[in-house]
Amino acid sequence: MPTVTFLPSNVKINVDPGETVLRAAMFAGVHINASCGGQGVCGKCRVHVDEGRVEGGRGKFINDDDFTAGFRLACSSQVVGDLVVAIPIESQMDKRVQEATGRRVGAAKLATQLDLATLKAEGKFEPPFEKLFLQLDKPTLDDNVSDLDRLIRALKHTGYDRLSVDYHLLDLLPNAVRDQDFNVTVTVARSRTKQDKVNLFNVEAGDTRNIHLAVCIDIGTTTVSAELLDLNTGDVLAHEAEYNNQVSYGEDVISRIMYSQKSGGLDKLQEKVIGNINSLMDKLLESSGKKRKDISHLSIAANTTMVQLLLGINPQFLRMEPYTPAMTYVPPVRASHLGINVSPQVAAYVSPCRASYVGGDVLVGVMGSGFYREEPITLYIDLGTNGEIVIGNKDFMVCAAASAGPAFEGGGVKYGMRATAGAIEDFSIDPVTFEKMILTIDQGKPKGVCGSGLINIVAALLEDGLIDHSGKFNREAGCPWIREGEDGGEFLLVPAEDADVDRDIVLTEIDVDNLMRAKGAMFAAYMTLLESIGLSITDIKRVIIAGNFGNYINIDKAILIGLLPELKTERFHFIGNGSLLGAKLISYSNQLRTEMMGITQKMTNFELSVHPGFMDYYVAALFFPHTDPKIFPRVYDLLDRTWSEVREARLQKVAS
Amino acid sequence: MPTVTFLPSNVKINVDPGETVLRAAMFAGVHINASCGGQGVCGKCRVHVDEGRVEGGRGKFINDDDFTAGFRLACSSQVVGDLVVAIPIESQMDKRVQEATGRRVGAAKLATQLDLATLKAEGKFEPPFEKLFLQLDKPTLDDNVSDLDRLIRALKHTGYDRLSVDYHLLDLLPNAVRDQDFNVTVTVARSRTKQDKVNLFNVEAGDTRNIHLAVCIDIGTTTVSAELLDLNTGDVLAHEAEYNNQVSYGEDVISRIMYSQKSGGLDKLQEKVIGNINSLMDKLLESSGKKRKDISHLSIAANTTMVQLLLGINPQFLRMEPYTPAMTYVPPVRASHLGINVSPQVAAYVSPCRASYVGGDVLVGVMGSGFYREEPITLYIDLGTNGEIVIGNKDFMVCAAASAGPAFEGGGVKYGMRATAGAIEDFSIDPVTFEKMILTIDQGKPKGVCGSGLINIVAALLEDGLIDHSGKFNREAGCPWIREGEDGGEFLLVPAEDADVDRDIVLTEIDVDNLMRAKGAMFAAYMTLLESIGLSITDIKRVIIAGNFGNYINIDKAILIGLLPELKTERFHFIGNGSLLGAKLISYSNQLRTEMMGITQKMTNFELSVHPGFMDYYVAALFFPHTDPKIFPRVYDLLDRTWSEVREARLQKVAS
Repeated sequence: MPTVTFLPSNVKINVDPGETVLRAAMFAGVHINASCGGQGVCGKCRVHVDEGRVEGGRGKFINDDDFTAGFRLACSSQVVGDLVVAIPIESQMDKRVQEATGRRVGAAKLATQLDLATLKAEGKFEPPFEKLFLQLDKPTLDDNVSDLDRLIRALKHTGYDRLSVDYHLLDLLPNAVRDQDFNVTVTVARSRTKQDKVNLFNVEAGDTRNIHLAVCIDIGTTTVSAELLDLNTGDVLAHEAEYNNQVSYGEDVISRIMYSQKSGGLDKLQEKVIGNINSLMDKLLESSGKKRKDISHLSIAANTTMVQLLLGINPQFLRMEPYTPAMTYVPPVRASHLGINVSPQVAAYVSPCRASYVGGDVLVGVMGSGFYREEPITLYIDLGTNGEIVIGNKDFMVCAAASAGPAFEGGGVKYGMRATAGAIEDFSIDPVTFEKMILTIDQGKPKGVCGSGLINIVAALLEDGLIDHSGKFNREAGCPWIREGEDGGEFLLVPAEDADVDRDIVLTEIDVDNLMRAKGAMFAAYMTLLESIGLSITDIKRVIIAGNFGNYINIDKAILIGLLPELKTERFHFIGNGSLLGAKLISYSNQLRTEMMGITQKMTNFELSVHPGFMDYYVAALFFPHTDPKIFPRVYDLLDRTWSEVREARLQKVAS
Repeated sequence: MPTVTFLPSNVKINVDPGETVLRAAMFAGVHINASCGGQGVCGKCRVHVDEGRVEGGRGKFINDDDFTAGFRLACSSQVVGDLVVAIPIESQMDKRVQEATGRRVGAAKLATQLDLATLKAEGKFEPPFEKLFLQLDKPTLDDNVSDLDRLIRALKHTGYDRLSVDYHLLDLLPNAVRDQDFNVTVTVARSRTKQDKVNLFNVEAGDTRNIHLAVCIDIGTTTVSAELLDLNTGDVLAHEAEYNNQVSYGEDVISRIMYSQKSGGLDKLQEKVIGNINSLMDKLLESSGKKRKDISHLSIAANTTMVQLLLGINPQFLRMEPYTPAMTYVPPVRASHLGINVSPQVAAYVSPCRASYVGGDVLVGVMGSGFYREEPITLYIDLGTNGEIVIGNKDFMVCAAASAGPAFEGGGVKYGMRATAGAIEDFSIDPVTFEKMILTIDQGKPKGVCGSGLINIVAALLEDGLIDHSGKFNREAGCPWIREGEDGGEFLLVPAEDADVDRDIVLTEIDVDNLMRAKGAMFAAYMTLLESIGLSITDIKRVIIAGNFGNYINIDKAILIGLLPELKTERFHFIGNGSLLGAKLISYSNQLRTEMMGITQKMTNFELSVHPGFMDYYVAALFFPHTDPKIFPRVYDLLDRTWSEVREARLQKVAS
């Protein structure tokens, strides 16, 4: 990993080869003026390469002389080896502020995390669906048993002697066995326990073992994500995500449940999410060039409400005390019967749930994180519209949920969007010149703000004293971007002329307030849960953060706004979309399906909504970072210091 | 059972109270002129009650004086007690002929037959679907496990600890448990073996144990029959039958299979038979006043081709050597997925098959007949469009099939019809005066001829020398009803003015030929099968006749035309529609489902179509009764005698 050293601050960071210098600077907490999101059109991010070499970085703003002299555009310069880069004076923020932040992307890889490599190493890469090639005896008048009996006879020779047969297989059978001269490939679903029968559910002519696909899907309240897997290798062949089509019927699970009670509402919501799944599968197949018929199964993880809506089960009682889901274990479901566009015999495994508001998305995420096998007490946080918390270790687990709203996923925010190309994902601002550094995903022309971008923007504005503790813009700072808009106070992020939308991209005070309520709900949830079991923040040895955008969050910034507790950076780990990870692991390993049931049974659920302390914690957390400085001493200390320095620097600037 | 004695022949017969005198006479083989089918409009069947009393019998043809004197119309006189009836002179056939026939309805009840009473006596009345009433604990915040977990917990208390859950149940669950304050009735499907899980597949609010229905269905090539069962008592609540809608796409299984190979053909045939099932269910529910939602399951028996067409499985290979069916065991099928109009969770049990042409209809019939449990060697004949034969006892069973064509079910016959009201079911003719005695089902106005009627008519015409050994009409007999029609020779059964159709009802020589080929195929089948296992007709201790019309066949007449072997009448037994009986027994007894599999496995199938002897037997049987007089010595003897007597009587009549 090449090291990039930024001068004059001498901040170092290790980045992957191919990373841009601008992104490296952002990760390192080094501000470089850049207003176009990194697409190379504003020309502001000019730097000088003092040592080492970069690829590219020329653009129209660097002439031949400048290029020879070592000047480059940071946004289009790719790191290829160790590098020393000097930030020009116009990009340098006040030096005192610069030193004070010194933030890092942090978050080491989680050692316990289960992934394809660990499953293979542990001998657990054994997908629940298996393809077997069989050469059947050809029928004669003396041996004219049925096609199915012939197939079962051959399967028994391979050791499968307790079989159940899916009747959808029968349609395929006569032609499948004869098309390739009685050479067939069958697909069997392994049973979860030895007692249970193995299900024989597909038959194809010839040897088709080389193509064996699965689709894993995470149905989030706001975002639906899917991956196409090669079950022979475990490779992810394609990844797609889109907003949940149900969003227009309510932003959170409660409003969806309410909509489901209207006439035709439940059917409509079911139809919408099935539409998501079909659309995502189309995209996965298109981008991978694979065929629908080769999909052997689906693995779906979702929160309890999303599961009930997917299956068309009345979710009304999830939100009524005592909050009982229809089921925790979901038997295998025939996907085509739900309207999913796959062969009729394809089964969907839907993750089990723990409680009304602690769903399969969390359970499979906990499984994927692997912490449930180890000693250290761990806080698992799934940041989403429905936020969930698990605390525990190999001996115990407790869980709870909090409705955070869609802000973490870019929902309910004026210019919010999913974390796709053009979304502002990182941001910093010179506290004195107010020059902005804006980084978009894939360096696309700015279109909006994704969830992690929202956290980073609010954190940066808070740190630089442009937002106060209560989430209001500091209208006395002299910042030209703070103004009154149609929805009240707003901060101009990108003017229309630089944006990919035809209006100014702004952050409103309402957006900031939505984020405050989201982080407040999450914080209150884990504080209440910790208190319920007699633990405190300091007992937490490890924090695992899951969520659709998890990998983009800057930990220091998340602590700064009070979303994450004030622990050392190295205790934090990201696993990204834990739900999608878990759904994938279920596709990889039949054994994990069994372990999964164990996790479910071990977990104790707390209903925070009826917990007397929760509302107090929530109200106390509606502040940046929190109303109680004792809980965030380092942040209070930092803000006190930087705010006074910034004030002074601004006064000096005005004076000069 | 009252005894009716007919004078002057002094023939006696026991009949059920309420039976008409005309039918009693027909069963006894006593001819009474009657041309209107028994509806009381021709007035020909006038008789005199010498002793005893009848109900009714007056009609417009009996004036007060006649009535006082003891005259009645036989067709509308009901037997209420012992009776002596004198046949008027104009109805009396030549006495010698009358004595010679002396036929009886015969066929004692089969002692081994399984029915509701025997199942109850043997403790086997235990339907595979069981309803259980559960009072669930009400959920609280301390016990807010899911609805399904709560249900399973309660079920475990009742002793069900290995359960699988149908996902269709989940839709119903939240409301069902709450609608009656956590009192629910669940329906479970017992497993076939102890190893297998019990399937939990329906839940209803409150206590619904008192209503628990099943529909059993026989899908014949020509006729589809169905019964609605009360699973609590075993009572048959309604019975319905109709022609198979597939008939217009081919009369026998071979032509259906050929049609299925056309583009869209398989789908069309499947759709047609599903249409039958839905229409029959509508009628069953209508006539019984029951509700569709209370149907807990379906039990379907059918021949192999009908099963594959029902399930939409390509039947092409059934008719291609080496004649392999897609499957012999059919896993439980979700009826609604086939398009059957029942609740989504309702499963259909489809009977297993033995071979391409020995289907579940025969297997369940064999089970129903119970002969497979006893020593005597038995010939089981299922008379249908696809005729099947089983020979065996408790130690062995062999089976074979022969394509008989639809004649036995009134198909492929010019005025053929199903055995419903208005179908001519019995017939006799005075060999000298040619006065006819016609009996219709339910004494309806004649509409056509059902299968058993066809046998009885041809036998009567054969016996009276109006049809010869080769099936041609005797145009020299001077019978006014024999004439040339548009399709060649024909016999006028009912003139248009007496019929319920607007044309003369006739029997054509082509119809007679169809019957000859049908009976020839059946006879050849059991002769070939007997020879294959080294047995002869005389080894047969018992003949069981199954078929949609079985109970109406007159054994002596069936022997006369060479359909049944020349054995003593007491060796013959009818079980009616064996397929429907078996389907019903499966609904009654889970244990029989297991026994059923044993029967299937014990049976050895012979493919007659590739058997060198079959075609010879078939050609030799295309004669009434058969080309070889040694096989039917008594019939040949009878025909020789009656034909010469009839000839003489006709000559006398002409001379007088």
